[in-house]
Amino acid sequence: MAKKSFPLSRVYGLIEPGPVVLVTTVRKGRANVMTMSWHTMMEFEPPLEGCVISNRNHSYDALKATKECVINIPTLELAPQVVGCGNTSGRTLDKFRAFGLTPAPASRVKAPLIDECYAALECKVVDTKLVSKYCFFILEVLKAWVDTTKKNPKTMHHLGRGSFMVAGRTIKLPSRVK
Amino acid sequence: MAKKSFPLSRVYGLIEPGPVVLVTTVRKGRANVMTMSWHTMMEFEPPLEGCVISNRNHSYDALKATKECVINIPTLELAPQVVGCGNTSGRTLDKFRAFGLTPAPASRVKAPLIDECYAALECKVVDTKLVSKYCFFILEVLKAWVDTTKKNPKTMHHLGRGSFMVAGRTIKLPSRVK
Repeated sequence: MAKKSFPLSRVYGLIEPGPVVLVTTVRKGRANVMTMSWHTMMEFEPPLEGCVISNRNHSYDALKATKECVINIPTLELAPQVVGCGNTSGRTLDKFRAFGLTPAPASRVKAPLIDECYAALECKVVDTKLVSKYCFFILEVLKAWVDTTKKNPKTMHHLGRGSFMVAGRTIKLPSRVK
Repeated sequence: MAKKSFPLSRVYGLIEPGPVVLVTTVRKGRANVMTMSWHTMMEFEPPLEGCVISNRNHSYDALKATKECVINIPTLELAPQVVGCGNTSGRTLDKFRAFGLTPAPASRVKAPLIDECYAALECKVVDTKLVSKYCFFILEVLKAWVDTTKKNPKTMHHLGRGSFMVAGRTIKLPSRVK
């Protein structure tokens, strides 16, 4: 997918609507990917994103050890991969191979971008104060990539128990909020 | 709106898709409401929700002092109110009156429910460790209310600069994730 560099000051617009994301990590030469929905913006610029990655997830150890990941944002075409990565563990499966995801080199971190995702945020962990109690990591986005040809991307939004809301139409309102 | 009590174990399904919410507080007998998008689930049960409420917002002082709020989830019909509450400050305006929002008594906290919203979560602040650095509050949901007659609620999802994504269709996938 033809992603272009995207201004860090506009990253919040990708995260605020609450899309399901695919988080990639790499450790000891082995890349992994997990499906994640518990995340929020915390600062505009440099963009900070807080997220919960459970210590039951294989990615927890990699993120804790390497302090790097990529937040990839998939659209509806990747629904089977989103569900597949959520149903399985990197402990026993090479998910890139199993689900036909293409790792692509990132510019600032060792974890890979997922080529099929329409946006990707290269991140480093900058605060671990709430990791032991809540598995809550605070990430700084170092570099952002977006396929800007994709208007109104059909992001997926987790409702639980197999249900997902698919992004609907975009409306413009007289909001003066950033 | 006819809201019913809703199981705490299912609150995550309301928050994960990333809706814009209206946060109510009350301090010294004066209720206020703000529009907010920076929030995430942090635990299933009891449900914990983390959120950023900037110290530039009037609600910050009320939340810090009273340690209580209600997270109300609006749908598209309330778009003018969502934008209005985002564009103004409770320092100088009674937003309930200005935007025709109806406060209704909560059961566990003093902050009011907004009658026009389809769902409401009564919350208390349980962790303030990241408040001074990030204005990040961790809330425990004490009681949840949802109008369950509202199928596929048209929640609003902030994209920034006046744009909002409106919740689209719901799909069912073979996910085994909670």
